[in-house]
Amino acid sequence: MPEISKRGIRMPESPIRKLVSFADKAKADGKKVFHLNIGQPDLPTPQVAIDAIKRIDRKILEYSPSEGIRSYREKLVSYYEKFNIKVSADDIIITTGGSEAVTYAFLACLDPGDEIIVPEPSYANYTAFAIVAGAVVKTIPSKIDEGFSLPPVEKFEKLITNRTKGILICNPNNPTGYLYTQAEMNKIRDLVKKYDLYLFSDEVYREFCYTGAPYISAFHLKGIENNVILVDSVSKRYSECGLRIGALITKNKAVRNSVIKFCQARLSPPLIGQIAAEASLDTSEEYMLETYNEYLERRKFLIDGLNRINGVYSPIPMGAFYTVARLPVDDSDKFCQWLLSDFSYQDQTIFMAPASGFYTTPGLGKNEVRIAYVLKKEDLAVSLKILEEALKIYPGRTL
Amino acid sequence: MPEISKRGIRMPESPIRKLVSFADKAKADGKKVFHLNIGQPDLPTPQVAIDAIKRIDRKILEYSPSEGIRSYREKLVSYYEKFNIKVSADDIIITTGGSEAVTYAFLACLDPGDEIIVPEPSYANYTAFAIVAGAVVKTIPSKIDEGFSLPPVEKFEKLITNRTKGILICNPNNPTGYLYTQAEMNKIRDLVKKYDLYLFSDEVYREFCYTGAPYISAFHLKGIENNVILVDSVSKRYSECGLRIGALITKNKAVRNSVIKFCQARLSPPLIGQIAAEASLDTSEEYMLETYNEYLERRKFLIDGLNRINGVYSPIPMGAFYTVARLPVDDSDKFCQWLLSDFSYQDQTIFMAPASGFYTTPGLGKNEVRIAYVLKKEDLAVSLKILEEALKIYPGRTL
Repeated sequence: MPEISKRGIRMPESPIRKLVSFADKAKADGKKVFHLNIGQPDLPTPQVAIDAIKRIDRKILEYSPSEGIRSYREKLVSYYEKFNIKVSADDIIITTGGSEAVTYAFLACLDPGDEIIVPEPSYANYTAFAIVAGAVVKTIPSKIDEGFSLPPVEKFEKLITNRTKGILICNPNNPTGYLYTQAEMNKIRDLVKKYDLYLFSDEVYREFCYTGAPYISAFHLKGIENNVILVDSVSKRYSECGLRIGALITKNKAVRNSVIKFCQARLSPPLIGQIAAEASLDTSEEYMLETYNEYLERRKFLIDGLNRINGVYSPIPMGAFYTVARLPVDDSDKFCQWLLSDFSYQDQTIFMAPASGFYTTPGLGKNEVRIAYVLKKEDLAVSLKILEEALKIYPGRTL
Repeated sequence: MPEISKRGIRMPESPIRKLVSFADKAKADGKKVFHLNIGQPDLPTPQVAIDAIKRIDRKILEYSPSEGIRSYREKLVSYYEKFNIKVSADDIIITTGGSEAVTYAFLACLDPGDEIIVPEPSYANYTAFAIVAGAVVKTIPSKIDEGFSLPPVEKFEKLITNRTKGILICNPNNPTGYLYTQAEMNKIRDLVKKYDLYLFSDEVYREFCYTGAPYISAFHLKGIENNVILVDSVSKRYSECGLRIGALITKNKAVRNSVIKFCQARLSPPLIGQIAAEASLDTSEEYMLETYNEYLERRKFLIDGLNRINGVYSPIPMGAFYTVARLPVDDSDKFCQWLLSDFSYQDQTIFMAPASGFYTTPGLGKNEVRIAYVLKKEDLAVSLKILEEALKIYPGRTL
């Protein structure tokens, strides 16, 4: 039997995935499991999107253009304009989810051995996509006691080698919910300029900024227009994770021409998804506001609740719908598994994501978890109660 | 401005793509262009698939499982059973088109520098996906005068090195329409066994075999069950290219476990596409037969017509909906471009794919084109007339 690739062996298996079988077992045993572990919004997809799918009036479900349907790309221009992001339809390439946008950005910009710098904790799959491209992710820890703000510039500069090709940020951040300030974004801009790096900026959570602090897009930064590669997706903002529609946006023509060759090889992004995503741009202000207010309330409820539990600490996330909280436990991988396999409170338990999967520096995140507030308040209330009760009796409690 | 990757530079631009702007120009100039260049079926998508999309009854369009929806995978088992392909739902991983299946097969099985052997002419994007994986495609020419049958085993053996990890075939073949015989498949099996190679087998055209000769799947070959990775797609058989639903099927558990990690990183294949693809398995026998008969007739009509034109030769393709024909021209890249930019017959012209894009051996395919019979007979009739008239006055005519 021929061997599988070393790359395949290097591909990480996320700690969340490892727990899925425990969650399945818990359910099979009759426990109710509250899913705080995944960024799958529970809010409804906008009706305009569902209607567009129902109204589909085509005889042949054919390939769409490799770079995406023109009318959709043109309509996106006005969407971005609302955020003061000035791009043309030609700058926008439609991808199969934000995942493909990150993958093609790496493939087009990075060669095997090239390095990118990413503040951690960070979305675990960036590492997976880097492995696909043969690129190396170097991480700089941000700290829970500093609210996961941007690490000092000197830490970035220390990591820069002649193989460093880019910096990657996620803003607002998954998993921390942190929103970079103008001052921080200026520091990133200066680094990008000084070392002539790519700035890969994943901004899929831009609709969800809660504190009144401004959302600073990488495209707002002057003087690095040709360095910026923006990653976007309709998954989170319209609760359309299943459509698999994202976008890669850049003013750098050489990058675009390269990305388009990868797009042409896979022929076409999903047709029906694009039709629904285009219709979603007509989503009512009311829907967007209701969704926003719902997350806003949940966030306050969750964070207040977490910080009321003895020994638990969560910074106040400014955006997205996650928080990384510190728990008084020996090992959050073990604790999260124990919650599923050994614990129940009134036949219920919770599934959280151990933070270790969001760090590459060994040992970090050991006493942290990521919690997604994609459940309604009543369920968050029960979840908080479960967490509180669990911590009372967890054998590995540390405080 | 940072440099794009060398890999991006190496990504091929297909000769078809290069001609698209000429086709657009021709249309802008008022010429009617018959598209014989692309494998986009013109036949309707089955109504059951469209209906399934219209009947979508979900509030949230959420992620589907990374390996695909279980009920769809289970239903596929009976579909394959009809072709005497015996697989379980666990052997099947749903992918975003056949493209993703090939890409993940390469990523999971091949490391940078590893080699695969492919008979040419072959589907151009295999090379693109190999570049993504850093793998090397070595080709063995098959010959139009031998009907594009399998090249001799010795030619394969000559190419085998300690980096050779697999053989890739497409059966029935794109671009040639060739269908491998039992004897040829046995030779492939013996090679795979002798050198312990992967056999990547793209069988997306299995529904379209016209001569009564049997379709031999790689899964029919005894003794290499753990070496076979089958690539499939609903695009061609149901005219559903836009859904982007394919599959990677293997009994090799190590490969599957590796592929699934790549699938998990990109989270989910398209949800709506899977719903439509699952419904498509209930497509009536009548639809399948009508589609089959339509291609069967077109094939006869096209091949007869081609071989009646002075200096033109096409073997009789046994499957798929393409043929590679030899033309009396100096350079089919030039000829295909000239047809779009310089020629018209009654304000009409044709767009064919120069065969050079399907060969990697320099110089091969210079006087060949790929013609897809995805147009109705009346349009094929006009297309043949256009080709005949064009060859009468093309300045680079050779015979």
